[in-house]
Amino acid sequence: MHSDVPFAVWSRERQQRIEGVLAEALSSKAMPAPHRLAEAMRYAVLGAGKRVRALLAYAAAEAVGADADDVDAAAAAVELVHAYSLIHDDLPCMDDDTVRRGKPSCHVAFGEATALLAGDALQARAFALIGQSRLGHGEGACVLLADAAGASGMAGGQAIDLDATGGSLDLSELTAMHRMKTGAMIRASVRLGALASKRRSMDDDAALEAYATAIGLAFQIVDDILDVEGTSASIGKTAGKDAANDKPTFVSLLGAAEARKRAETLGRDARSAIAIFGKRARRLAELADWIVLRKN
Amino acid sequence: MHSDVPFAVWSRERQQRIEGVLAEALSSKAMPAPHRLAEAMRYAVLGAGKRVRALLAYAAAEAVGADADDVDAAAAAVELVHAYSLIHDDLPCMDDDTVRRGKPSCHVAFGEATALLAGDALQARAFALIGQSRLGHGEGACVLLADAAGASGMAGGQAIDLDATGGSLDLSELTAMHRMKTGAMIRASVRLGALASKRRSMDDDAALEAYATAIGLAFQIVDDILDVEGTSASIGKTAGKDAANDKPTFVSLLGAAEARKRAETLGRDARSAIAIFGKRARRLAELADWIVLRKN
Repeated sequence: MHSDVPFAVWSRERQQRIEGVLAEALSSKAMPAPHRLAEAMRYAVLGAGKRVRALLAYAAAEAVGADADDVDAAAAAVELVHAYSLIHDDLPCMDDDTVRRGKPSCHVAFGEATALLAGDALQARAFALIGQSRLGHGEGACVLLADAAGASGMAGGQAIDLDATGGSLDLSELTAMHRMKTGAMIRASVRLGALASKRRSMDDDAALEAYATAIGLAFQIVDDILDVEGTSASIGKTAGKDAANDKPTFVSLLGAAEARKRAETLGRDARSAIAIFGKRARRLAELADWIVLRKN
Repeated sequence: MHSDVPFAVWSRERQQRIEGVLAEALSSKAMPAPHRLAEAMRYAVLGAGKRVRALLAYAAAEAVGADADDVDAAAAAVELVHAYSLIHDDLPCMDDDTVRRGKPSCHVAFGEATALLAGDALQARAFALIGQSRLGHGEGACVLLADAAGASGMAGGQAIDLDATGGSLDLSELTAMHRMKTGAMIRASVRLGALASKRRSMDDDAALEAYATAIGLAFQIVDDILDVEGTSASIGKTAGKDAANDKPTFVSLLGAAEARKRAETLGRDARSAIAIFGKRARRLAELADWIVLRKN
C-alpha cells in the first residue's frame, strides 16, 4: 500500500486483512475441531480488538522492507496469543471479568471449562501458524514467540501481577512487571514482523527493540489512564477495575497528569528510535502516536 | 544403550534421563521466571509421572536408528504438554481433582490462578524446546506438536469429553474422543521421536502411525479399567472418578472383561505393526506390553 495513504486508511486495511487471516486460521477447514470449542475460539478472537500487535508486526515489516504476505502468519499468531491471554485473564480465578471487547467474556458466553480449553487451544494454534509460516524455519520464530508468551514473558508478568494486588509494587517493580506482561508480546510482534526481512542490520534490530520497549510501556500507561478516565462502554471492558482491586498502576503511583506525560515522552522516544528507517518507519511512528493518544 | 538390557533397566535409565532434561528446561538459568510460578511449573512436572510419552519418543527414535541426543528436546516437550494438560484438567472448572501423581494437585498446592498460569507457561515452554531443538527446523516439529495439542487434538478431545458427561457417547464416539484426547499426543510423541532420523521410509512412518494409534487407544482403555479396579494410592489420582461423574468409559460400555480383551488385542496389533523394524523395535514392543499390563 502506498506510503501516502493516511494512517486511518492504512490501519483499517490492515485490520481487515488480519481479520481475514484469523478467520481463515480458525475456520473449520483449516482447523477441524469440536463445534462448541471452535465457536468459543472464534468468539474470543474475531470481530473485535484493536489488533495493535498485528499492526505492529506489519509496520515493522514495512520499516525493514519486507512483504506483508510474509508477515500474515506471525501477525495472526501474536493476536491469537493475545486473545488466549484475555480469555484466561477474565476467568473467575483470575480477574473475574464479565465483559471483554464490548461483549460478554468468553467464559460467560461458553462456560468456564470451554473458555479454559479455548484459550489453551488458541495458544497451540498460534504455534501451528508460526510453524507453517515462512518465518517458521531458521530464525527461531517459534522460540521467539514461546519465550514472549511464557514464564519469562507474558505469563510471568501475569504471575507477578497476581501477587501485586494490595499495592505492593513500587514504580520500578511495576515497570518490570509490565515489561513482561504486555511488553514481551509487543516486542515479539515487532520482532516477528521484522524477521520477514533477511536484509536487516544489527542497528535495525536495535532500533526496533528500543521502539518496541518504549511503546510497550506507553501502551500500558495509557491502559492504566483509560481504566480511570474511560467508561466501560468506550474501552470495551469493565472500567475502574484496577482501583476496585487495589492494584498498583502508573496512575496510582504517579497521578494521571504525570502518567500522561510519561506516555507522551515514551511516544517521542519510540519515534526517535526508528528515525534510521526514514520514510519506511512512517507506520511505526503513526502507531506510536495512536498508542499514546488512543481513547480505547 | 545395548539392546540386551532388560526393559526395566532401559526404562529407568530413560526416565532418569528425561527427568534431567526437564529439570534443566525448567531451571532458573534456562527459564528466568517469577519464583512462585516457576515453582508451580516444576511441582507439576518434576519427580513424578510414568513418562510414557517421553519413553515412546526415545523408543521410536531407536526403531528408526536415531540418536537419543536428538530426541531429548522433543521428549521433554511432549511431557511438558502432558503436564500442563493435567494441571488444567484438575482445575475446579474441569474435573475438580485434588490429587495428582500421588500428591495435591497443582491448584491445591499453589492456588487456581497460579496453576492456570503454570499450565499456560508450560505449553509455551514446550514450544520453546521444540523450536530450539535440531528438530525445530525443516520437518515441521512445531506444527506437529501444535496440531496434536490443540483444537484438532488433545484440547479438542477434552472439549468433547466435557460435553459427554451423562453417558451420551456410544463406543465409536468414545473411541473418536480418545483418539483426540490422549491419542493425539501419544501419536505426536512417536512421530517426534522418529523425526530425529532422516533415513525413514514412508513404510516406517506408516508402521509407527499404526503402532501409535493402537497403543494410544490401549492406553486409554487400561486407564478406564484402572479407574474402576485400581485404588487412588496405586494410580496416584482419585479412583472411581469416571463412574462418580457418570462419564462413559470403555468399561461402562463394554464391561471390564471385554475392555481388557480389547486392550490386549490392541497391544498385539501394535507389536505386529512394528515388525518391519526387526530388533530395533524392541523397546516399542516392550512399551506396548507395559502399557497394556501396567497397574498404575
